[in-house]
Amino acid sequence: MIHKNERKGKEMGRVFNFSAGPAVLPEEVLKTAAEEMLDYHGCGMSVMEMSHRSKMFDEIIKTAEADLRELLSIPDDYSVIFLQGGAHLLFGGIPMNFLKRKAGYIITGQWAKKAFSEAKKFGGAVELASSADKTFSYIPDCSDLPITDDMDYVYICENNTIYGTKFHTLPNTKGRPLVADVSSCFLSEPMDVEKYDFIYAGVQKNVGPAGVQIVIAKKSFLDVEPAPYTPDIMNYKLMAEKESLLNTPPCYGIYICGLVFKWLKKMGGLSEMKKKNEEKAALLYDFLDESKLFKGTVRKEDRSIMNVPFITGNEELDAKFVKESKEAGMENLKGHRSVGGMRASIYNAMPKEGVEKLVSFMKEFEKNNS
Amino acid sequence: MIHKNERKGKEMGRVFNFSAGPAVLPEEVLKTAAEEMLDYHGCGMSVMEMSHRSKMFDEIIKTAEADLRELLSIPDDYSVIFLQGGAHLLFGGIPMNFLKRKAGYIITGQWAKKAFSEAKKFGGAVELASSADKTFSYIPDCSDLPITDDMDYVYICENNTIYGTKFHTLPNTKGRPLVADVSSCFLSEPMDVEKYDFIYAGVQKNVGPAGVQIVIAKKSFLDVEPAPYTPDIMNYKLMAEKESLLNTPPCYGIYICGLVFKWLKKMGGLSEMKKKNEEKAALLYDFLDESKLFKGTVRKEDRSIMNVPFITGNEELDAKFVKESKEAGMENLKGHRSVGGMRASIYNAMPKEGVEKLVSFMKEFEKNNS
Repeated sequence: MIHKNERKGKEMGRVFNFSAGPAVLPEEVLKTAAEEMLDYHGCGMSVMEMSHRSKMFDEIIKTAEADLRELLSIPDDYSVIFLQGGAHLLFGGIPMNFLKRKAGYIITGQWAKKAFSEAKKFGGAVELASSADKTFSYIPDCSDLPITDDMDYVYICENNTIYGTKFHTLPNTKGRPLVADVSSCFLSEPMDVEKYDFIYAGVQKNVGPAGVQIVIAKKSFLDVEPAPYTPDIMNYKLMAEKESLLNTPPCYGIYICGLVFKWLKKMGGLSEMKKKNEEKAALLYDFLDESKLFKGTVRKEDRSIMNVPFITGNEELDAKFVKESKEAGMENLKGHRSVGGMRASIYNAMPKEGVEKLVSFMKEFEKNNS
Repeated sequence: MIHKNERKGKEMGRVFNFSAGPAVLPEEVLKTAAEEMLDYHGCGMSVMEMSHRSKMFDEIIKTAEADLRELLSIPDDYSVIFLQGGAHLLFGGIPMNFLKRKAGYIITGQWAKKAFSEAKKFGGAVELASSADKTFSYIPDCSDLPITDDMDYVYICENNTIYGTKFHTLPNTKGRPLVADVSSCFLSEPMDVEKYDFIYAGVQKNVGPAGVQIVIAKKSFLDVEPAPYTPDIMNYKLMAEKESLLNTPPCYGIYICGLVFKWLKKMGGLSEMKKKNEEKAALLYDFLDESKLFKGTVRKEDRSIMNVPFITGNEELDAKFVKESKEAGMENLKGHRSVGGMRASIYNAMPKEGVEKLVSFMKEFEKNNS
């Protein structure tokens, strides 16, 4: 049953979608996409139908890159690349390009673990730290890790979608290059790009539809020879040189990302998004901290402002909560199958009203079930 | 300048788009996509926003697969996989999975050449035949190629988008498995799936938006160990086992493909499409054969019914034709940069009226320029 949500001016039965990804997108962006579906800016065709070598698409991808550079203040010595294949392909592509001797991995959840297991196929991948001992509910101390000079890079997953943790301080890499999967916190707040050598994000959390990954990489870091069998489209140096157009890119996804970048600029940019995101997260965490029924699962200082896992401690009650919240128009609050409980992903496009509604629903649920 | 085309009931200025890919999609499909953009079937969210593990998306991908199986009469011992990464990634992925000793490549154009060059990275790739001597304007005789028993597969690009040729008879592979890139003829006519071991198509020609590839592969052929460094999402056996959901697939693209499959079924299926496509192609080829100004560039018996290259023999006149046809509302008639001249891609979604308009424009142009 679909519950009409209570935002003003809503003519459709849109739900509040707390999915961890693919996830909620700005309604304004979806409206524009719908309006432009058959005829983009009077050119007589859909963005889906355009040649990727056309002037129109060239403008779409160049504008997307320029807006992204503006949003994140990306320095000129960093390349921006739009890729496809999923973050999973980057798990393999990163060692295929950059792992020549050793690489250090910090294991803070399932995606870092998966990246590590792909890197191990190449030999030389080393586990530097892990929070597996406590179900990844914290970020390990990364101030003095056993990083050696022969490490080609240090790898982190900055925000852990499943477990709801985030590196609020980047690891001390002892001068070695930092590679970061920022999929689930990308564009949720400003970031200091120069602290990283290779940043990447699957866009389906905070930025667009599944099927696009964005890489922001220091040109000097990209300047290596990948393993000899590397497919050209996994050769990131080559992809940067070809400005993401070595082959046909996922054009429509890039177009949607571009619309989201415009929306972010209109919303005041990333400092403003950070403020909004912190407000939304505080609403939920403050309630979790005072609730007698619900509790957060993450060490306070490591909490993500994007993904908020919580439990009642009673599996039956968790299931009841998920069922009843769905009936009330709040979708995808079930926790990841590897953790259980609940999880609210409150990305950029989740309006504050959605979080307010969730918190008031939780209060009501607590009253009725204690 | 955008010219309103003359199809009945058109409220928008849609052009006739002869792009080779990304390419024209059925208007009906785009309308459905626009209507469902904010709220798919009353579920309160866009297909872009759905978890790929949700029941709704499960139904979308399963229905797409079932409809595809019906359209092509795919036998049960063949897997269907939805991938991302572009055909380019398959150029590398195919040898990474299947090339253990040798593989034979038939070079009929740029994409076969590119696939061959990716395969050479693994060693053991052998050129069996080529039509490079005459700018790929024909399909070489493939009745008795130097195929040896140690070849793990024989590779073809069945329809050559750039050069406008097609294998109307499959090569005699002497019992070795046949791997075929069918991107630009996929679903343009029925095909006998059992003659192949591994079929793949980038959907951006005839089926959907760039960013999805469809694989149809014999299960017994998939049952090999890929090279040890193969990223999991390039391990086709594993992807088949995971029913394309090892990681987040390009959900929205798969949804559009599914809408196109429904449209194809409504149009009468692939036998009916073949009839329509042959009619459209005949309109154009018959005119080319009688014209004193324009001529086709491909040997008659090898002509593609999807991609029709033609020239005037005068570069200035070619440029004038491209310019004036654009002004008349026909887009993307310029030939590929590696061939020059003109090319009309007349995929499933190109209405007969588009080809009629093109032919009548060509007649007029011939009259005015001779």
